[in-house]
Parts: sequence; structure tokens; C-alpha cells
Amino acid sequence: MLVVMDKSATTEQIDYVIKVIEDLGCTARPIPGGDRVSIGVLNNKGPVDTALFTGLAGVKEAVPITKPYKLVSRETKNEDTLVKVGDVTIGNGFLTLIAGPCAIESEEQALTIARHVKKSGAQLFRGGAFKPRTSPYSFQGLGEDGLKILAKVRETVGLPVVTEVMDVQTFDMVEHYADVMQIGTRNMQNFSLLKRAGESYRPILLKRGMAATIEEWLMAAEYIMAQGNHQVILCERGVRTFVHHSRNTLDLSAIPMVRKESHLPIIVDPSHAAGRRDQVLPLSRGAVAANAHGLMVEVHHQPDKALSDGAQSLYPDQFDLLCQQVQAIFNVAGGPDPF
Amino acid sequence: MLVVMDKSATTEQIDYVIKVIEDLGCTARPIPGGDRVSIGVLNNKGPVDTALFTGLAGVKEAVPITKPYKLVSRETKNEDTLVKVGDVTIGNGFLTLIAGPCAIESEEQALTIARHVKKSGAQLFRGGAFKPRTSPYSFQGLGEDGLKILAKVRETVGLPVVTEVMDVQTFDMVEHYADVMQIGTRNMQNFSLLKRAGESYRPILLKRGMAATIEEWLMAAEYIMAQGNHQVILCERGVRTFVHHSRNTLDLSAIPMVRKESHLPIIVDPSHAAGRRDQVLPLSRGAVAANAHGLMVEVHHQPDKALSDGAQSLYPDQFDLLCQQVQAIFNVAGGPDPF
Amino acid sequence: MLVVMDKSATTEQIDYVIKVIEDLGCTARPIPGGDRVSIGVLNNKGPVDTALFTGLAGVKEAVPITKPYKLVSRETKNEDTLVKVGDVTIGNGFLTLIAGPCAIESEEQALTIARHVKKSGAQLFRGGAFKPRTSPYSFQGLGEDGLKILAKVRETVGLPVVTEVMDVQTFDMVEHYADVMQIGTRNMQNFSLLKRAGESYRPILLKRGMAATIEEWLMAAEYIMAQGNHQVILCERGVRTFVHHSRNTLDLSAIPMVRKESHLPIIVDPSHAAGRRDQVLPLSRGAVAANAHGLMVEVHHQPDKALSDGAQSLYPDQFDLLCQQVQAIFNVAGGPDPF
Amino acid sequence: MLVVMDKSATTEQIDYVIKVIEDLGCTARPIPGGDRVSIGVLNNKGPVDTALFTGLAGVKEAVPITKPYKLVSRETKNEDTLVKVGDVTIGNGFLTLIAGPCAIESEEQALTIARHVKKSGAQLFRGGAFKPRTSPYSFQGLGEDGLKILAKVRETVGLPVVTEVMDVQTFDMVEHYADVMQIGTRNMQNFSLLKRAGESYRPILLKRGMAATIEEWLMAAEYIMAQGNHQVILCERGVRTFVHHSRNTLDLSAIPMVRKESHLPIIVDPSHAAGRRDQVLPLSRGAVAANAHGLMVEVHHQPDKALSDGAQSLYPDQFDLLCQQVQAIFNVAGGPDPF
Repeated sequence: MLVVMDKSATTEQIDYVIKVIEDLGCTARPIPGGDRVSIGVLNNKGPVDTALFTGLAGVKEAVPITKPYKLVSRETKNEDTLVKVGDVTIGNGFLTLIAGPCAIESEEQALTIARHVKKSGAQLFRGGAFKPRTSPYSFQGLGEDGLKILAKVRETVGLPVVTEVMDVQTFDMVEHYADVMQIGTRNMQNFSLLKRAGESYRPILLKRGMAATIEEWLMAAEYIMAQGNHQVILCERGVRTFVHHSRNTLDLSAIPMVRKESHLPIIVDPSHAAGRRDQVLPLSRGAVAANAHGLMVEVHHQPDKALSDGAQSLYPDQFDLLCQQVQAIFNVAGGPDPF
Repeated sequence: MLVVMDKSATTEQIDYVIKVIEDLGCTARPIPGGDRVSIGVLNNKGPVDTALFTGLAGVKEAVPITKPYKLVSRETKNEDTLVKVGDVTIGNGFLTLIAGPCAIESEEQALTIARHVKKSGAQLFRGGAFKPRTSPYSFQGLGEDGLKILAKVRETVGLPVVTEVMDVQTFDMVEHYADVMQIGTRNMQNFSLLKRAGESYRPILLKRGMAATIEEWLMAAEYIMAQGNHQVILCERGVRTFVHHSRNTLDLSAIPMVRKESHLPIIVDPSHAAGRRDQVLPLSRGAVAANAHGLMVEVHHQPDKALSDGAQSLYPDQFDLLCQQVQAIFNVAGGPDPF
Repeated sequence: MLVVMDKSATTEQIDYVIKVIEDLGCTARPIPGGDRVSIGVLNNKGPVDTALFTGLAGVKEAVPITKPYKLVSRETKNEDTLVKVGDVTIGNGFLTLIAGPCAIESEEQALTIARHVKKSGAQLFRGGAFKPRTSPYSFQGLGEDGLKILAKVRETVGLPVVTEVMDVQTFDMVEHYADVMQIGTRNMQNFSLLKRAGESYRPILLKRGMAATIEEWLMAAEYIMAQGNHQVILCERGVRTFVHHSRNTLDLSAIPMVRKESHLPIIVDPSHAAGRRDQVLPLSRGAVAANAHGLMVEVHHQPDKALSDGAQSLYPDQFDLLCQQVQAIFNVAGGPDPF
Repeated sequence: MLVVMDKSATTEQIDYVIKVIEDLGCTARPIPGGDRVSIGVLNNKGPVDTALFTGLAGVKEAVPITKPYKLVSRETKNEDTLVKVGDVTIGNGFLTLIAGPCAIESEEQALTIARHVKKSGAQLFRGGAFKPRTSPYSFQGLGEDGLKILAKVRETVGLPVVTEVMDVQTFDMVEHYADVMQIGTRNMQNFSLLKRAGESYRPILLKRGMAATIEEWLMAAEYIMAQGNHQVILCERGVRTFVHHSRNTLDLSAIPMVRKESHLPIIVDPSHAAGRRDQVLPLSRGAVAANAHGLMVEVHHQPDKALSDGAQSLYPDQFDLLCQQVQAIFNVAGGPDPF
């Protein structure tokens, strides 16, 4: 349930509503909006009577929330969430481009690619230090050495960095180095990790699970937000279907659907959706045309020598063209559809 | 196998190659290209030795074709096929918009919508006279009366018309009235219908089956082309997946994949992919951004009263905006990707 | 809607109800049950008031039918349908084994296999004369010559025959020779073919479409039944999923689901589900254990030389074992679950 | 690569081969078989020349392993793995029934159900103390209190217990109480958890991910085995498809496929595959008929009051019937197929 306060509600009135909620054995989560405060009622073990609140001073209405998600929902907070990373803003009205190699391989590799993508127009740098690999015998990433290289990229090239965190044990370490922490597809319902992410002071980039419904995905974001971290960026990266001419099938409809249901920003990873270089450019244009708030793209200066996912990495000049085209399309399509 | 002739090959040389092929018990299908003739070897019951042809006068090379499709393939004919419907051209370099109601309901309805969509920028009118419906108790279309209304639209409003043909029995009738004949999703592997379509003098718009791979889809087009009708337009309309926030999942990667494998034009039906109005505009922009050669969109002036699929039909003013936006995106993205 | 008559309702009372239905512009379809008649109200263009019937003489109740299917539904007819083919009964309480090659190749091939499978325990012989093939260049079946061979098998070996009909044009011909007519996966929603099948005097074996829901499948059966042919056998043959260690994924849950929703018999085709010989035996046992009313299995005496689908055809001695095992399992599992 | 030693190879010869492998910078993993030792070469960063080993004393052959999995593969170890849990054996030749509630709710609930299922024939008791729930607001399990109840069940009723471990942080605690540790669907590619499981002294029951291929699933088992824990039980629990008459689609073909590729035991969870009580019995019979080594079934004495997944829990008398039927089917089908 959500208790929506009057615009003119006083601090005392808000505090009293919180007390009532807590006396019921529930958790109260105040959500400051643009012009009013709403208070989420969490952890209720069953239906709570709205009548308990509608009579209280300063309360506009009490909305029973039938969708299982609360904090991620537009019904809870209608204003679009804008996630700030240094000078970069991710969310409605902005087009954010994140680029870099799949895995950090060396300082030279990372700096070379970072300089390229910055010049092309990327605002954040991505690169994996801890790599979730299907095989235990594949390259698992440089670990903390990779994180240090990312920090060097930020200092030297001036791009904030996005990198994946795979578990609670290494969370503190990754949190120390990264600007945005990615939770990968395979961990979308690693609930222990989501809870830890909810306590982080960093924005979380949450990839959609390979077979996750929109509802399950938003509920994973809800786990993070329920712990207090509201800086969540959703990332569509394709779902698993019978189709095999691409590694996954990009679910373009997820973009309007998420924008309708949630106030959180949604970006697209065309590289993992396609799994092959020659589809990355059309999928990128398609995603921005469908109103994604940004893209996360794999770029490598020597894809044929990449230790991971080279086949789907763009060459730097391909990324140049991508930036020009998606910017032009954003100028046409960017912003909420009027209908 | 494909026998590629020299640019300077004479008619006699071509005829001799054809005779050799036919003596082998195979069918020879000459394919005039921009600057040379190639000859497809069809109906071979197994491998044919390329050496039989490479020594013949006027033959440049004999290419064994490993992909199961031949006539649809870029390996057989590299030049993009352009399908002409009156003054309209469908294919590479053009953006063709087809619009109209799901089903023809009355002359007034059809004319009203046709005038609207023409003004917005549609170049062809769509409307169903024979409707494949999941339930035998649902409205099945007006039949020949609907076809007559379509003819009236063409005469009065000046738009060529696209309509579905459901079986061989009514093929002649539909062929008489329509400018482009649509074969629907559920009939993509109705091989008897495909063969009849292959004998038609009309262009065929072939929708992808709900669970068809690209290869199966191209093989369905191959059935049509193998009978001699090379005017085939492919139409992606979403595939069935676990996802249920849209009726189907638009397979955006199919566009670059088909463009790479085949010379045939590919358009997109965002209305059946989405199944809901609020996703049609973003999917339309996404499809054009991914280099589709056109769109087929459901538009109705009174969607709430539509006899079929009203929930996914755009209002006329939404279609206006769609036309403006996709035209602008086509100016950015249209044309083959340089990579 | 369904009008359920009293057990003691007279012919005059029944006729009067039919007249009332027809005066409403609807179609009345009397459905004789074990001990009472029910009358389906078809082709209603919207809700019909149940009160119109509950007051009529001989009427027990009028049941609004919310599921889109009517005639196939247990709500319409609770008694299990038993389909009779010669001496063979297909339906609840029976285990029917249908076996034979994918395609009829020659009289010798057909007779050899038919004798084998009869000895092993098959009660019907299957074999394709018209073959739906993905490629126009693949073997398309022997056509009428194949049908004549099937007739010869019936006469000589004494097994009724099942064969596929692909279109309305050849329907009469196939109907003349076959005992049971199969409508294939790719034609499950070929509505013109379904309507023709509804007028046939032969039982129809209706395969599930590759991506069809249970509801769509039952609605396809409804098309047949709505034309008057109530002898329909459903055949589950696997659906298309992301899984690729089998050609399709056998949907075992379809068996209890169909048995619950419908009175029609449901059998399983493990050969097309698996697409590979080594899975046919376990899938066959699984299907019978889950209460399928029978199996349709591909058997070939020389699978390596089969013109079609050899890789999934059992050797005759494998089919022997299959018959023994599924009979033993049927003795354990056969019959409706008590819960 | 796998180095297969002679049956008569000495300890010195084996140790020397291990040294050669380690000098190459690889890891040597000796795998004792029934009558000979093989040595897996792990962590090789690229192809290793087989010729390096074939000349060494005591070496029979060096087999390049093209499948990405090694330790889980029948090529590495042909003998079926038998997992021992107290007096219970899980694997080829045995049918193991695991039953209990989804979640442990109280000591009384657990003991009541455990006594029931033991009497019916279950050999292990299952029950969740830590529950992965889609919503952060759903019941998350009793935690350590639940584990203590499980220990009480083992002592009082005499059944070993299976329970889920959700993360590395609580691994030691769960390991202390459980007899078999389950890794759930959503954690199948939680690689940090898999590595910790690989260091456990407990058998691991590894559920298949909702959209995992067989190869990805076996590679997840490989992660566990590569750390030294070879006691892994695989559990098929349905995959996500377009089908919605069951919660997931049981992939019956996974059973013969896994049995062919791997020596590890495979059991089936029909409750999560079905998601509804009325399909659990037929799916259970189907799984055993297809040669699963066991079942894990949800049973509750008061399903309507269950805190989690009550709709799919069997009543105790339904589980009675299940035990009788699957035992009878196991007598027919149990054991490897002769073909």
C-alpha cells in the first residue's frame, strides 16, 4: 500500500503516519517526490486496511497497490528517476552511451579503448574485472588488478566506470573502485547480492535475466530499492527464445513497457543481445528509436584478440558511426511518446 | 547449384547450359541479374558435380550452394529485389508504409480510413476480406464483398491494396481484386498455397510464421520463387516467446539477418508484434531504425468499435506522428550498413 | 452457450429449443450425450440471455460458456469421446499404437514395415503419401501412388491406415483411401482445411501446431467439430522452445490439461518431438505414463536409407521393446487420475 | 584433455604424468575409475599437444576433449556416479524419492509431513529454511530456526534432509545442518556459490536454470566438480517456454540426454515444473518412465494454508499413490535403455 500525503503535509503529520505503519508491524518507507511525499507500506504480511490511513491528518489518499512491485512503480513515484554519475545523468531526456571492452585485459588495452570511445561520444567506460563465465576453465577476469586499471582509466581519461560485481564477498572491493556497479544477467535473482546492492552508496545497473518477465525484473529492482538504494538503472540485454540467428532476442517492447510501469531509467545492451558484430549497429539504432535512455556497447580495438566476447565487439570506427546515428535518432524519438 | 555465366555469354551458350541441366533430370531456372545471367539448378535429387559446367563455353563458375535456399539467396542474386506495385517501389532505398484496418467492415469505414492514411503518407492500403480467426465463431470477414470495397478504395482514393488470401480455392478471386496478396503467419508453411502463389502474377507479401526460423521462412519464399514468381516481400511480425507484455516478441535481428542472406525486401508489422496500441509507435521507429524497408500498420478511425483487433489499431493522428518520425529516422538509418 | 435438456426431454421439446435458437440468428448444434441431449448455441454475435431458455419446457439449465471453445469442452459433453476405426477404439480406457514409416517409399517397404509393426502390437499403420517439406527441393511423397500402397497394406496386412492430407484440393482423394486423416503441425490453423475436415466422414487426427497454446489447438478442433465431424483425435508432438538437444520439446503437461478440458482423445508423437532415435523410447514411456491414449511412432526397417526423417525412426526390434514397455506402464497408469 | 592410464599403471607413473601436466602450467585432476585412473588436464589456456603424453610410461592414450565439460562427462568417467546419503543411494539402478513441504513453517508442520512421507516411501525429506522469493515482501523462510527443525526431523523421523543454500555467507551454517545442499534454479550460474559448493563435504543437488541449455547446466556442475566435490545430483525442474498451462515446461528429453552425456544422477522436480497439483502425478510417472533416478516432490498436510507454493503441493494420500505408481513404473523402465 502507498499512503500519499497532501502537498502541504507537515513533518509531524508524516512522522505520525510512519508511526502508525510501524505499529502495525510493517516498514514505512518515505519517498520524496517532486511536490509531495508518499509513504510506502512494506513488509505487510497480508492486506492492510486503507481506512486506517484515509482519516489521518495530512493524508490525501491510501492506494492499495495490486502490482507486486511498489517502490519501482510509477504508481508510487510518477517522476522519472534520474541517476547521477559524476557529471553524467541517466534517465528521461538524456541519451547515455556506455562503451568499452567485455573484459579488462591490460592497462594499455583499457586506456586505448577508453580514449577512443570518449572521443566518439561515450560518457561512461565499461570493462569487466570479475567475469561470470560458463566454463570454469575460461578466463575469469583480472580481479582487483582489473579494478585498479579501471580506476586509472577514470583518472587518466576522465570517464566514470561501470563494472560487474559477482558476489557479496567482493562487493566492498568493487564498490571502492567502481562508479556504477553492474549486476549481471545470471545474478538477476541472486537475492543476497541484490540485498547487499540495496545497501550500496553506488548506482546499480541491473541486467535483465535471460528468461525473466518484466515483473520479475522489476521485483529484482524492488529488492534493491527496499534496502534503501534508489539509484537503479535497468538494462535490457535480450531474452532466450527459439531464435538462433542472434545469441539472444532483443525484447524491444520491454522499453515502452518498463517506461510505462516504472520511473527507473532503462538502457539496452545490444552487444549481448546480438552476440555478433554485424547486428550491433541496427539493434542500437532500434533501441534508441524505441526510447531507451542509453546503450551499453562492447568496443575493442583488436576484437580478434579479445580474451572474451570478441565476436560481438565493435571496431572503434563502427562505434563512431553508432554514436552519430543514435544521436540523430534520439533527436527524433527522444522523450516520452505523447500517446 | 548455381551456374554463373560470363557477362559476355551469348544466348546460345545460355541455352546450352540449360539443356545440360535438363538432361540431368534437373530444372534450370535462369535468373537475369544487373550485368550477367545466372542459372539455378533446381530439383536435383542429390549433389551435382560442378565440374560438369565449369568446362562449358560462357560459364564463369559453378557454385555449390550449401544453404538450403537458392533463389532467395544473395549468393544466387546479389542485387536487391525491388517489388513494383503501381507507382510504389518496395525494397532497398525506399521506405514503404502500408496502413489500414485489420478487417474491412464497410465501404464507409474503408474509405474513411484510406483517406486518412493516404494524407498521412501511406502508399498502400491494407484491409482483410478473408480473416483467419482462432475461433470459428468470430467474424470471418466480408469475403468477396470486402474485396469489392478494396477495389473501390483503389479507384476512389488512389491507393493500391494489400489483402490476405487464405486458400487455393479463393486464390483466383483475391488475385482479381488485390494489388498485393498477403500470406498470413498461420499459412507460412501451407505449401499448397505457396505453390499457387508462385504461379500468381501478383506480388506476394509473406508473413513469418509465429515460430519459424529465418531459414524456414526463406524456404517458404523459395517455394513461391521456385514456381516462377520472384515478387516476394517478407514481413516480420513477431515470434512467440515466453514474454507476455506484448502479444509477440518483435525479432529485430531478423531485419539485418534477412538483408544479409537474401535480396528480397523485408518489412515489419508492428501492430501484430505488439498487440497493443501503446507499443506500436516505438516498435515502428525501432524497425525503421534497424533498416526495415517498410511498415504495415493497423489504423482505424474508431478502434473501440473495430470488429477485429481494435486494441492494437492506431488512431489516425497517431499514424500521422508515426509517418513523420519514421521518415526522419529513415533519413538517418536508411540504406545498407557500411560494415 | 449450452442448453442442457432434461434426461426425459421429448423430441418436440428439443426441436422447439432449436427453433428458438435459430430465430435468434444463431446456429443450434444438438449434442447427444450418454443420457441426455445438450444443444450448443453457435455463431452468436454476442452474449445471449440465458433467461430465454431456462423457462422452456424440457430445459434443465442454460450454461454460459466462458471458454472460447464449446463443442470440444467437457462442459459441453462430459463423457469421453471414443473414436472407432474398424475394430480399433481410440480414447479413454484404451492404449492405441500407430506405427509406420514417415513416408511411403514403395510397396515392398510399406508391407515389410507394416507386417513388423503389426506383429509387435501396432493397431494402425501410418505412412505419408503427401509430405509437407520445408524445402521445395526435397522428396514430396508419392502422392496417389502412395495412397494406393496404403490401401494395399490395409487389405494385405489388415491394419487401418493413417495418412496426412495437406490441402482441400486433394482432400477427396485422400479421404477415399485413408481410414484416419491427419492434419499436420503446419496446417493446424489452416482454417479452410479444418472446415473441409469438418465435413469428412473420416476421423481426423489433428496435430498440435509448433507454437500453439492448448486453447488454440482446441479451437482448431472446434473448427472441425463445428462443421459436424465429432471424430477428432488430438496429437501432441512437441513444441518449439530454446531447447536444442531434441528437435522439439515434448509438452507432457498437455496430456493432463487436455484430458481435463476436453473429452477428445489425445495421443503423442514421440518421434517428431525427439527428432532422434535414442530419445523415442523414453519419451514414449513418459507419454503413456502421463496418460496419453496412444502413440504414433515412426518405424523403418532401414532407417539409414529412409527418404525422410530416418534419423528418428526406430528399428523394428526397438519398436518391439517399446510395445512391451508401454503396455506394462499402461497397466499401471492407464485410466483417469483419481485426483 | 584427458590422460587415460593403463590398468596396470603404477603410482609412480601416475605421479610423473601429474608432474608433467603441472609443469605446463595446467592443473592435474586424477579421477579414479572402476579399473583404471584417468587424469584430467584442467586450466589449460589453449590446446595442449596429446603427443606430450602418449609416449610416457603407463599411459594408454591422451584424449582431446572437445565438449567444454570434462569432469561431468562420460568420456572422462564412464561409470555412473552413485551419491550416498546415509543409507540412501542416488544414481543408476535406484529410484530415490525426496518429499516434503516447500518451506519449513514450524516443527509440528515439518514432523507431521515427514512422518507421512516416510510411511509412503520417501527416503529423504525436503524443506526450505532460506527461500528465494520473487518479492522482497514475501515470506523468506525461517532461516537457522528452520535448519534446526530439519535437524530435529532427521533425528526424530530418521530421514536425511535436503535444503537450499542461497549464498556463500550462510553456506557454513546450512552445511552444518543439511545432508544434501540444494542450489536453486536462480543460482545455477551463481559461480561464486558453485565454487564454494565445490569445496563442500556435502552432496550438492543442482537444479537446472529456467532457461539453461544442457551444456550450461553440465558446466555449472563442472564448476562444482572442478573444486573437488564430485557428489553432484542434477535436478530437472522445467524450463520457461511460451506454454502457460503449466508454470514451466518439463523437459523430458533432458533425462536421456543427461544420462548419455554424463555419469551424474538426474532426478526430476515435478512440483515446480507443473506449478499445479493436478499435473504432479502424471509428470512424476512420466519422469520415472523416462528413466529419472528419482523425484523431489512437494507434499503438505494442509496445502491451502502453506506459506509458500501450496497450490502445487500434494496431499499426503496423493503422495501415497504416487509412490506406488512410480515404483511399479520403475520396475518396468528402470535401468539403461538397451539402445
